[in-house]
Amino acid sequence: MINRQGKYTMTFSDSIITGYGSVAGKKESQGPLAENFDKLIYDPRAGQDTFEKAESLFQQEAVLAALGRANKKAEEVDFIFAGDLLNQCISSSYGLKVFDIPYLGQYGACSTMAQSLIMSAVMVSGGAASSSVCVTSSHFCSAERQYRFPLEYGGQRTPAAQWTVTGSGSCVVENSGKGVRVSAATIGRIIDLGISDANNMGGAMAPAAAQTICDFFRDTETKPSDYDLILTGDLGYVGAKCLYELSQREGYDVEGYHNDCGLMIFDRKAQDVHAGGSGCGCAASVLCSTIIPDMLNGKYKNILFIATGALMSPVSTQQGLSIPAVAHLVNLTV
Amino acid sequence: MINRQGKYTMTFSDSIITGYGSVAGKKESQGPLAENFDKLIYDPRAGQDTFEKAESLFQQEAVLAALGRANKKAEEVDFIFAGDLLNQCISSSYGLKVFDIPYLGQYGACSTMAQSLIMSAVMVSGGAASSSVCVTSSHFCSAERQYRFPLEYGGQRTPAAQWTVTGSGSCVVENSGKGVRVSAATIGRIIDLGISDANNMGGAMAPAAAQTICDFFRDTETKPSDYDLILTGDLGYVGAKCLYELSQREGYDVEGYHNDCGLMIFDRKAQDVHAGGSGCGCAASVLCSTIIPDMLNGKYKNILFIATGALMSPVSTQQGLSIPAVAHLVNLTV
Repeated sequence: MINRQGKYTMTFSDSIITGYGSVAGKKESQGPLAENFDKLIYDPRAGQDTFEKAESLFQQEAVLAALGRANKKAEEVDFIFAGDLLNQCISSSYGLKVFDIPYLGQYGACSTMAQSLIMSAVMVSGGAASSSVCVTSSHFCSAERQYRFPLEYGGQRTPAAQWTVTGSGSCVVENSGKGVRVSAATIGRIIDLGISDANNMGGAMAPAAAQTICDFFRDTETKPSDYDLILTGDLGYVGAKCLYELSQREGYDVEGYHNDCGLMIFDRKAQDVHAGGSGCGCAASVLCSTIIPDMLNGKYKNILFIATGALMSPVSTQQGLSIPAVAHLVNLTV
Repeated sequence: MINRQGKYTMTFSDSIITGYGSVAGKKESQGPLAENFDKLIYDPRAGQDTFEKAESLFQQEAVLAALGRANKKAEEVDFIFAGDLLNQCISSSYGLKVFDIPYLGQYGACSTMAQSLIMSAVMVSGGAASSSVCVTSSHFCSAERQYRFPLEYGGQRTPAAQWTVTGSGSCVVENSGKGVRVSAATIGRIIDLGISDANNMGGAMAPAAAQTICDFFRDTETKPSDYDLILTGDLGYVGAKCLYELSQREGYDVEGYHNDCGLMIFDRKAQDVHAGGSGCGCAASVLCSTIIPDMLNGKYKNILFIATGALMSPVSTQQGLSIPAVAHLVNLTV
């Protein structure tokens, strides 16, 4: 069953993450979470002839790992929600066609993992499905070429820039079984405070994160200290600072409870990633490698997972437009 | 309430299209449906400085028309599902930010209108919302530049090519009220029969349409003659012929009941559009200008609306890949 709570929040009675899987690349294998991923693939082409095909393969591997943990076959799954950063979401469409599962492509930029997880919860709690899979990915090489410059160009990166994670994460969500519960969710509204620097994604996305988090606190009449962890997707170092200030203005002090997937996946001092990690695969691979297992082993009982997306494109940037952003929040409990 | 029927189909008890709106451009104003659109905008830039901003404005106008018919304000709407053909779906994100409605970006290429309508029905029938809006758009000038060639190049079009519709359509879906009912839906699976000619979208998408339509007939134990109209999104002339043949092989003769939005919106003899219209805005604007009103005035009582999407990108085409496609089906009744 799904119920509305407050203006923007819904609660789910029967929505359980019964399986999860994650895959990451070489740079991620040198970071603090290396041991947590189900699979590490060192070759950026993953044995394929293009980066795009490699990213599709990352999605396949993440889905297979999640299905394996849930003890499900692909033909038993009712829906798959998926998305990525590439134009027309080709990592997802080419990667997932082998599974032959009814497919619903999602686009929320780096917020896509939260969005897909929420849509899966809606499907199983609403009675439309008994099981649903969600998956997202990103790949440093395919994203850099598309959004910025060919790698061979060797462009300098600005201090606010983030490093696109090569990785993928997937969850199986069911209406019964054991696992982390998707208890509530808040769908974000698009916000655009006028940032137009495409190398400052964290700054552009922080207002969306703050808005959605504060919407959730107001709707549920809770506060940051009610949660073991407030985990944003990929605000990075710059965006996290903005989030603290913007939430503070609304009367919520999130800093002491906050971490960010983009700050967790790399060691910023040792790995030269500037403001941290980013990409659809960042939030997804951290959630599915580290956070869900930490909930199952008792480290966290009640967390908020907020993935943020910058909804611009290279064309809108070239046309001088500012960057609209959105953030979706999931309350996970055990 | 939502129930499952058969392997791929779900039925909705409380999902009503209470408002609808459509906008189209100059070429569409010279076609057979000209009088049905709520608004015709002759300037391809719609008074803006870019085609992309014009497309965003088309979405805004379609949403405003739909909200007006439903007698709703934007702040009363729980969710908006939207998508378009541009990279990173910028027509939607830039166009809809003014409404401040919780936003869920969808990507199914030209299948996006059916997908967004289904997701809205899931939300209101599943108890997650009392009202939801869906909207999609396409624009000949922004799509040609992105997918094919700059307009100034004047490239020759092949006989199987379709003409991207400049237009937008939007529906308001509520859990009570008067209007056309969203009674059932089938979410498609990705299918790829190996067509790699990016100028033959109809041929690439027909197998997806045939698969989803036959899934629906099997799940509901119905046949083509049970419906007043089987309406595909934008298979065009070439794709429609393929659909007849592929469905026939599965034992369903759809030809006598079939029409296609891409064949309805233009006069193929007079308008030089080759195989017909296409684009996210084709299915959406025909549905919301012509089909829904024809259901309300008694012309049709029970129809199937199947929007089809080709899930390739210019990059996948350049890399020589074939074209995966998906089709989603909505059963509309009065």
